[in-house]
Amino acid sequence: MINYPIKRKPQIKSTNYANLGMTLESDIEASNTYYLNHNIAVIHKKPTPVQVVNVSYPARNKAKITEAYYKTPSTTDFNGIFQGKYIDFDAKETNSKTSMPLKNVHPHQIEHLRSVYTHGGIAFLIVHFKPYNEYYLLKADILLDFWDTQDEEKGRKSIPYDTFKNKAYLIPFGYQPRLDYLKVVKEKLL
Amino acid sequence: MINYPIKRKPQIKSTNYANLGMTLESDIEASNTYYLNHNIAVIHKKPTPVQVVNVSYPARNKAKITEAYYKTPSTTDFNGIFQGKYIDFDAKETNSKTSMPLKNVHPHQIEHLRSVYTHGGIAFLIVHFKPYNEYYLLKADILLDFWDTQDEEKGRKSIPYDTFKNKAYLIPFGYQPRLDYLKVVKEKLL
Repeated sequence: MINYPIKRKPQIKSTNYANLGMTLESDIEASNTYYLNHNIAVIHKKPTPVQVVNVSYPARNKAKITEAYYKTPSTTDFNGIFQGKYIDFDAKETNSKTSMPLKNVHPHQIEHLRSVYTHGGIAFLIVHFKPYNEYYLLKADILLDFWDTQDEEKGRKSIPYDTFKNKAYLIPFGYQPRLDYLKVVKEKLL
Repeated sequence: MINYPIKRKPQIKSTNYANLGMTLESDIEASNTYYLNHNIAVIHKKPTPVQVVNVSYPARNKAKITEAYYKTPSTTDFNGIFQGKYIDFDAKETNSKTSMPLKNVHPHQIEHLRSVYTHGGIAFLIVHFKPYNEYYLLKADILLDFWDTQDEEKGRKSIPYDTFKNKAYLIPFGYQPRLDYLKVVKEKLL
């Protein structure tokens, strides 16, 4: 009985580290599956873009890709429809206790979120502060404000944790759905 | 000189066949770029999903995928936002003069379009009848009607060209945008 928590702790830790970036993604994908199966929303993760260079055909009808490279995505990872509204977001994780570095977000993702926001879509980031195990929904307009007012020379280049506390919305983490971000969308963004 | 055209002919032919389904796709992508640049809509093609099996690292920070396979997509190829509305569609080509075979559409694409349609999104197919060089926008509800009333034994399993003539909308083909499908969406579906 005494050993149980001691044994278990590192196991959890290693799972967390091995799945860096995967856990949040899989939590969101599990939530999306829940939303789809319960007829709440249709939201999917886009496949990771790959540049295929060589393909061989070891068997008829079976293409084997033998050389390919990961490409930088031109949009965010997730989009779909909820209550007739277009939803678009990306997911980010940080180990920082004080801020989310803006280098975590690609410029083309920023521009994509800006376009979506301009066209009346619901655009945001889901940010996981790992030290607190807190998940925040940060609306695109707040992200864009920070992005656009970055001082190139002094370089803020991060969004303080306090901004999340004050201006973003905490996403409830639970069993089903694991990460109920659409509850926040429904209550705060619609 | 005499040999040149003989050599060249099969090359052109093979290019055409190799790009089967690519031309329509690239016409749509060119239109999407036009829409994006002119601030009309934000619509992107989803990357082709690939199952990565092996990755090597010939250089630091450079991942080379050495074994991967194409996966069946779980959704349609295109989605995005237009005038605040969620848009979702797939593109199909047929060489038939009389009908579009329903085997061109994967069951999961049908179910995805059904979900989108149920959630109030704008869902459709763009179908290219190659013998006529005509492009049609077929609303998801008509597609679903045909799909759901398929006789398993007799098996219609195709949508007649006449149905396209009577119930679908011809998409204007031009220079910019090449395939102005949002004109049809705006006039007929909004």
